[in-house]
Amino acid sequence: MKNNQFARLDTDLTTAISEMQTINFYDASVANATNGVFTYRLLLRKAFLDATTGSNFDIKLANYLATPETNLADWLDLEQPVTAPIFYRVALQLLDFLETVDYDLTDPLAAMAKIQLPVYHTDHDEWSKDDVLAAWYLLLTTHTKNGQTYLDKLAVNGYFTSLYALPASKKPLFFNGKAQPVFDQNNLIREVVYVESDVDSDHDGKLDLLKAEIIRPRETNDGLKVPALYTSSPYNQGINDEAGDAQTHNVNVPLTAKELNHTSYADIEYHETDQTLPDKRTIAGETTTTEETFGREASYTLNDYFLARGFAAVYAAGIGTVDSDGVQTCGSVEQTKSTVAIIEWLNGSRRAFTNRTDNIAIKAWWCNGNIAMTGRSYLGTLATAAATTGVDGLKTIISEAAISSWYDYYRDNGLVIAPGGFPGEDADVLAVETFSRMMKPADYHGIKPFFDAQMKLMQEQMDRESGNYNTFWDERNYRKNIKNIKADIVMVHGLNDWNVKPRNVERLWDGLRDLPVTKKIILHQGQHIYINAFRSIDYTDMMNLWLSHELYGVDNGAKEQLPNVVIQDNVTPETWTAYKDWSEPTLPKSRYYFANDELVATPANHGAKSFSDQLPQETFDRYAAHNDVWEQELLTADKNALSNNRLLMKSAQFDDTKIIDGKVIVHAAVAVNQPLGMLSFQLVDYGEAKRFNVSPTTINAHGLDLGYHWREDSLREFMLASHKTAFKMITKGHINLQNREHPWQNDELKPNQFYEVSVELQPTFHRLLAGHQLGLVVYATDFGMTVRGNQDLQYSISLDHSFVDVPFKD
Amino acid sequence: MKNNQFARLDTDLTTAISEMQTINFYDASVANATNGVFTYRLLLRKAFLDATTGSNFDIKLANYLATPETNLADWLDLEQPVTAPIFYRVALQLLDFLETVDYDLTDPLAAMAKIQLPVYHTDHDEWSKDDVLAAWYLLLTTHTKNGQTYLDKLAVNGYFTSLYALPASKKPLFFNGKAQPVFDQNNLIREVVYVESDVDSDHDGKLDLLKAEIIRPRETNDGLKVPALYTSSPYNQGINDEAGDAQTHNVNVPLTAKELNHTSYADIEYHETDQTLPDKRTIAGETTTTEETFGREASYTLNDYFLARGFAAVYAAGIGTVDSDGVQTCGSVEQTKSTVAIIEWLNGSRRAFTNRTDNIAIKAWWCNGNIAMTGRSYLGTLATAAATTGVDGLKTIISEAAISSWYDYYRDNGLVIAPGGFPGEDADVLAVETFSRMMKPADYHGIKPFFDAQMKLMQEQMDRESGNYNTFWDERNYRKNIKNIKADIVMVHGLNDWNVKPRNVERLWDGLRDLPVTKKIILHQGQHIYINAFRSIDYTDMMNLWLSHELYGVDNGAKEQLPNVVIQDNVTPETWTAYKDWSEPTLPKSRYYFANDELVATPANHGAKSFSDQLPQETFDRYAAHNDVWEQELLTADKNALSNNRLLMKSAQFDDTKIIDGKVIVHAAVAVNQPLGMLSFQLVDYGEAKRFNVSPTTINAHGLDLGYHWREDSLREFMLASHKTAFKMITKGHINLQNREHPWQNDELKPNQFYEVSVELQPTFHRLLAGHQLGLVVYATDFGMTVRGNQDLQYSISLDHSFVDVPFKD
Repeated sequence: MKNNQFARLDTDLTTAISEMQTINFYDASVANATNGVFTYRLLLRKAFLDATTGSNFDIKLANYLATPETNLADWLDLEQPVTAPIFYRVALQLLDFLETVDYDLTDPLAAMAKIQLPVYHTDHDEWSKDDVLAAWYLLLTTHTKNGQTYLDKLAVNGYFTSLYALPASKKPLFFNGKAQPVFDQNNLIREVVYVESDVDSDHDGKLDLLKAEIIRPRETNDGLKVPALYTSSPYNQGINDEAGDAQTHNVNVPLTAKELNHTSYADIEYHETDQTLPDKRTIAGETTTTEETFGREASYTLNDYFLARGFAAVYAAGIGTVDSDGVQTCGSVEQTKSTVAIIEWLNGSRRAFTNRTDNIAIKAWWCNGNIAMTGRSYLGTLATAAATTGVDGLKTIISEAAISSWYDYYRDNGLVIAPGGFPGEDADVLAVETFSRMMKPADYHGIKPFFDAQMKLMQEQMDRESGNYNTFWDERNYRKNIKNIKADIVMVHGLNDWNVKPRNVERLWDGLRDLPVTKKIILHQGQHIYINAFRSIDYTDMMNLWLSHELYGVDNGAKEQLPNVVIQDNVTPETWTAYKDWSEPTLPKSRYYFANDELVATPANHGAKSFSDQLPQETFDRYAAHNDVWEQELLTADKNALSNNRLLMKSAQFDDTKIIDGKVIVHAAVAVNQPLGMLSFQLVDYGEAKRFNVSPTTINAHGLDLGYHWREDSLREFMLASHKTAFKMITKGHINLQNREHPWQNDELKPNQFYEVSVELQPTFHRLLAGHQLGLVVYATDFGMTVRGNQDLQYSISLDHSFVDVPFKD
Repeated sequence: MKNNQFARLDTDLTTAISEMQTINFYDASVANATNGVFTYRLLLRKAFLDATTGSNFDIKLANYLATPETNLADWLDLEQPVTAPIFYRVALQLLDFLETVDYDLTDPLAAMAKIQLPVYHTDHDEWSKDDVLAAWYLLLTTHTKNGQTYLDKLAVNGYFTSLYALPASKKPLFFNGKAQPVFDQNNLIREVVYVESDVDSDHDGKLDLLKAEIIRPRETNDGLKVPALYTSSPYNQGINDEAGDAQTHNVNVPLTAKELNHTSYADIEYHETDQTLPDKRTIAGETTTTEETFGREASYTLNDYFLARGFAAVYAAGIGTVDSDGVQTCGSVEQTKSTVAIIEWLNGSRRAFTNRTDNIAIKAWWCNGNIAMTGRSYLGTLATAAATTGVDGLKTIISEAAISSWYDYYRDNGLVIAPGGFPGEDADVLAVETFSRMMKPADYHGIKPFFDAQMKLMQEQMDRESGNYNTFWDERNYRKNIKNIKADIVMVHGLNDWNVKPRNVERLWDGLRDLPVTKKIILHQGQHIYINAFRSIDYTDMMNLWLSHELYGVDNGAKEQLPNVVIQDNVTPETWTAYKDWSEPTLPKSRYYFANDELVATPANHGAKSFSDQLPQETFDRYAAHNDVWEQELLTADKNALSNNRLLMKSAQFDDTKIIDGKVIVHAAVAVNQPLGMLSFQLVDYGEAKRFNVSPTTINAHGLDLGYHWREDSLREFMLASHKTAFKMITKGHINLQNREHPWQNDELKPNQFYEVSVELQPTFHRLLAGHQLGLVVYATDFGMTVRGNQDLQYSISLDHSFVDVPFKD
């Protein structure tokens, strides 16, 4: 186990003592203790929560070794000075590390260093009272083997229950810059309001009402104002799996030739049209009391964690969901407006009602007006959308695996490109899936005709036939409005996320570079996952530091403390490194020319090389049914059923380890035997190695408590696979040969004539080990992402005009 | 979705009304209602918990359709008579079924029948008040789409919170024969005691103290006596993964020849020896208050469910675990005694202390003396062990996937046979893994020399070299003591459990046949899993009915209501069928003779057929690394790397569907070229079909609430795979050719001489579809279970003397 803590603050002794006083570790007895060892014993007593009597405390102490021979109870009785080896030998035990496995009793400090746990340093071997206090403070903020701070471990065992009764005026409570769980999660208030938006997406002549579920600490009833963590999730009132499946498109259809045109961006640019909106409802009264509650919300574990710490959680599914008005539109401006409406209500500038009919208004009187948005995938997407409106009150978003332009989710360079794992999905499929009003027949039957018509319209507008970027997609490109962003942003993305591909975050990151907001990015080795239950990084602490600062204004230096870029290494487990930047545009690129089956540094004139895209029907069917087999055989250099259907080139073995950082660009001169075609590229790391498993391993199911007798998450970590593999795909890209210039413009494509195309692969950050080879595979049909027409298409690549440019980090 | 409810009781109207009165559905307003529709509205009002005002209730009613055109709010206003179509159209919506997907609005009753939901029947179309009350009662006990009763769905939304305040004397509360969640799970008492056992397994001259964690309802402090659900889990204070891995045996070792002997069972039979035990501790005082508490126990979700219903949960890890004395012994009599000690304390006949040193005694004064044991695998094993002692107070055990004889777990017919998925595991490995005292260095260093010596002894005694049944294994055969069992037993086992193989439950079931206790068995299509979160069977309700009867003495007819045998079908999902018996010894068997690659009804003299066990090193390495590939190629009839290393025979296609019920026996005449050898057999269902996935699919992660704002489980179900497969292994068996007579006796084995062996395959229950073929694969080395010596062994099978006997159910 290797610990990586980015959110732990160094603190001077005075502050440490004062903070320990607020959480009752430093009290009168400790203040009166006359030396280090007495102080140590008093602190331990407070930490041994299970022992409810002093006699049992002594017994429990005897379970720990202070020296290799003497247990802690006996050692404390000797009243000898505390030393670093004593303190950290016990600390390792308190932090749940295991002898032999994690540390050797004879040298605890070596283990502290190896596990990357912070150690208190002082000149004198024999610790004074102050030394013990300073070291104890540090210990409280140090992670256990189970991925949370020692103080959080104590919290999970009930440490903070005595502070539940603190008056509202003394809450929230911060320690080491982070909010602590002094709110009783089993005494939360759950209520529903209906926010009146500024859209009428179902054209019923009434402004869409939007249901919002609120969970807030009981203390808000006593005057405490709290910030809100708002998660906008179209999924969270239910999903129409079956209807979505029925809507899914057949991908075994041919690619078709597109008519040449000279469309410019201006021709297709989206402009908001003035709409006459229905009148606002007439307020019939005002109240501070809601009329509706709920049992169990569809929650995000990160929000659950904060519910114990003085934050409210607000969930809204938006237009087109159960108990709300409107229809699903998959990322439209109307959806953004409906997302923002909740923030405006929380921030005081919009009305909400207690139910859907009586027009009794209610304010978010319990909210301090500061809002953060959280969530992954579509949820993070809507957070991104909201941020690009610059709405007041939205102080920050934590957008995880978020889409920043829907064209980058469902299309690429003039091609239909499915999110990995979901061939045939498209904007209309997602709209149907999330249109949860469908689940309530009494409501659905009224809206069905309108929604069906909307879906028909969407299918035309999204234009699956051409795959081009058009007005529909331009409306759904949030990056157009990056300049409006006022919220600080934390972005989290998987470098192996082929669902929401990394371009979505890279272009947002790039667009934010010169904007006067604070931006942070964390890139992990996962696919489309959450990382808040990882053992090796203190992600939850980082977000606590961040939100304590952003929403409560705590002066904890969060913006400086958290690195701008944190990236998980792809070679060594549990290694997270801080960087200054990612995918810097100025990074020089190394060029590799195509040369038969090699990638070479200087062009070698080898003429052209051809491959066919068509497969025998049986082979085609096998790949269509088993995408994993296709992927494996595509990248295997040995002869197999795909050998003649792709070019596979490898560089020489690398002498040194190199890091690919950012956007790899492939430049290819290609001819095809028909007036249509596409090219796909995969950049590959070739070399026998034990690589990370695709998904994190559960280390401890339900083992990560989010509070005291509260909800639980499963602790996870990326582990190396038990067997070596020969290669791993690093990144990929696709292009329609008729969209060489722009995704909105159809180019001419004459059969058998060579054209030059330039394709930016998805951005990456990948350590290529010495001895490995960099590979490039050039092919056409991508069984997991493109249409699969199995057409008689023959591609030729002119080798001496083709190359790949790779940005290596120094 | 198909619903299978076995625990729903039919109830007369008077009882129904009286029971609805206890849970506040029938109150003065309902009593005064003058007709069916008014009654219906009042009942709905109580069920719509989210609406905290009448005005919002009306709005929520409008979300439901009463007729295909009229919503429920409008329909109720019409004050027309309730009819079956109205009631069940709304019921399907209340039960979370989906229009189109699950039902058609025009014919709700057809859907009720198809989903197998119970329907209230009456002569008159227009329902009276009594009809509505009776139908409502039935609805409350009917399962929703999410695998719990409608009443449980209401409970999860807070229905019972108003009854938390009921006086202790009015609790527990039963409805439809089952305990209801009227206890606040967020107000439970957690405490620890140390039970003094009658063993001194660490030979320290003191009786082993055993830590027990107790969770009991607060109401016990006010005089309520509750029964205990006791889970004995050696895992539950932690597991030494790394030390266990280090202990794991190398399985790439040769099979060795055993010296001929004439050992009889009497020679190796285990007899308990008289031991002089240390004196009991001298009691220094008595108390009713404990000295220790705990945060989060390692819980079983079934216990969690009952904690809201008036049951205590008790967890103990037993000898050799954190905070207890003793060493791990993997199933010894001492472990059984330590398991039983907790029951004796709960039942009042044994002492416990408040801590490990002060000898202050404490009684289980809050317990009504009735105990059930729960848990799966090792946990169920110890429940089985405890039951075979006949200990007082143990009213019933629910043993899931339990071992009934450790020889059937780690050995078979004179061979080392690993639990599936864990090659190299053995009794000593499990002992090391579960010896959690190792995690507390201060404690561990004292006991280490003794434990190491014990492990050395165990390694000799378990005798991995011969694989024979001996005194060590006889001590660990709980079935020897079946006759002592006084507890009623519920057994649950997976028909595809190759970890704890089905023989363990079948021989227990068989041994119980004539014993005067009630026994029930549930067989599912899973491997080594829990089934209490399955959607299609009301397992949790069944256990509630059972435990309400067994532990609270509720006269609910549980013993008659629950079928003796329930078996999940292997062809059609969500199909559970009640049977009278399983694996009846009297069932006639059909014989299939070996005939080259066929299984035939009459012997066909074909001489002998041979196969070699040895593989090229590369092939061997591949199979050793990828057990799944080995398994696949072993059973694939097409030529592959294993074709010459096994015999594969298939019957003709079956004309009709047949059920194999119980023990298949293979009889083979075999010769081998060395004085040692083994045979393995797999019975196979050949035929293209979509079969169940190996593991259940999560339908709703964290979607199964175990109470109101309490712990959660993930709803699961077995689904058909998306693709067809050509075969599926039904059952398997193994034998050492030197153990033809007995597992404790070594027979002579002359090279190249034919011997007859008879092997009972693991018992099964398998529906073989018409058109499918029954297959038998004969081989030697089992890469997943046996040693893998890759020796030059040539086997010959005399076909005309070899056959397989298959018991088919009528």
